[in-house]
Amino acid sequence: MDIAGYPSKLLEDAVNEFAKLPGIGKKTALRLVMHLLKQDVDQVNNFGNAIIKFRNEVIFCKVCNNISDTDVCSICSNQARDHSLVCVVENVKNVMAIEQTQQFRGVYHVLGGIISPMDGIGPNDLKITSLIERVANGSIKEIILALSTTMEGDTTNFYIFKKLSNYPVRITTIARGISIGDELEYADEVTLGRSIVNRTLFELLFTNN
Amino acid sequence: MDIAGYPSKLLEDAVNEFAKLPGIGKKTALRLVMHLLKQDVDQVNNFGNAIIKFRNEVIFCKVCNNISDTDVCSICSNQARDHSLVCVVENVKNVMAIEQTQQFRGVYHVLGGIISPMDGIGPNDLKITSLIERVANGSIKEIILALSTTMEGDTTNFYIFKKLSNYPVRITTIARGISIGDELEYADEVTLGRSIVNRTLFELLFTNN
Repeated sequence: MDIAGYPSKLLEDAVNEFAKLPGIGKKTALRLVMHLLKQDVDQVNNFGNAIIKFRNEVIFCKVCNNISDTDVCSICSNQARDHSLVCVVENVKNVMAIEQTQQFRGVYHVLGGIISPMDGIGPNDLKITSLIERVANGSIKEIILALSTTMEGDTTNFYIFKKLSNYPVRITTIARGISIGDELEYADEVTLGRSIVNRTLFELLFTNN
Repeated sequence: MDIAGYPSKLLEDAVNEFAKLPGIGKKTALRLVMHLLKQDVDQVNNFGNAIIKFRNEVIFCKVCNNISDTDVCSICSNQARDHSLVCVVENVKNVMAIEQTQQFRGVYHVLGGIISPMDGIGPNDLKITSLIERVANGSIKEIILALSTTMEGDTTNFYIFKKLSNYPVRITTIARGISIGDELEYADEVTLGRSIVNRTLFELLFTNN
């Protein structure tokens, strides 16, 4: 339902801008704007300016394409990390999720999406050329493909795999299997089947990395 | 869950500001910020500036306390409306909802909340004094109390009713009864009971106003 009769053009503009965000309709937008009306002017200025500043000043790392405050991000410029091990991910959120696990000491390559014909996203819309260039430079030993285990993710995995097949680099993917804490009887049969085919030596369960 | 390890301070600031909004957690905030990253810089500037401009420049009508772009809002300055009939509402959203019905040709008085001891909101936090002043000026014939049919709404109704009891003004409340389109068997018994006590002449169903 559209909301007509805004008592103020300023209110209407603010609501319309909020309602452009994904998952936020006109009613939620109005609720958020009315919330901001109750906040201090300084707080609302901080909110608006943080967003403007982020969008205008954000930098993408020229090595891995991750969001950064500097030309080369803090991960790529960290010499304590293993620069011969590159984890390929779809987006910045995935980098953050993997960093959160504290299980990975290599570096990243952010594709900026995955191949999805339904959404009109092809290989040329992604940072695949720059990945191949990184590999062609020769110092990378292993590429870990850490994309979603969906049709689109697998398509992208396969595309990158083919593109890299002429280079002397080891290509791996994240393990697929039963999530930790899951009840076996509720696992889907594809995952369960694959988890048996790709079974792991029991003693490896207790080692890190 | 908190998200650690932001790759950029600008990103972290933008996410934290979004996450201060009601109903928006860190994960949703990150999703919204990543969405803005894909938008044109101009579009994001418009978003941020619309919010800042709204908060800094919004005016409350000096007559009815509704949000306005001018000192006196478009409803209060409309001479075609009945200024002797004042509808008392909790907030701006209620004004918009009633305007949407196109059934009311009077003017409004926006309280800015309802009496709610649980939230620390007392009569002095609301625009009740200015309502009494409007009534004391003498040209108002009827006050329609259009607050939520909750305990807080009824408390506020009763408080206003007592405060206005010495003035020669008719005080009414919105009709309470079965919502149009509701199945009778699912109506709560308080509403159903009241709808029988306060029954309406059948022919009045087919008149407007």
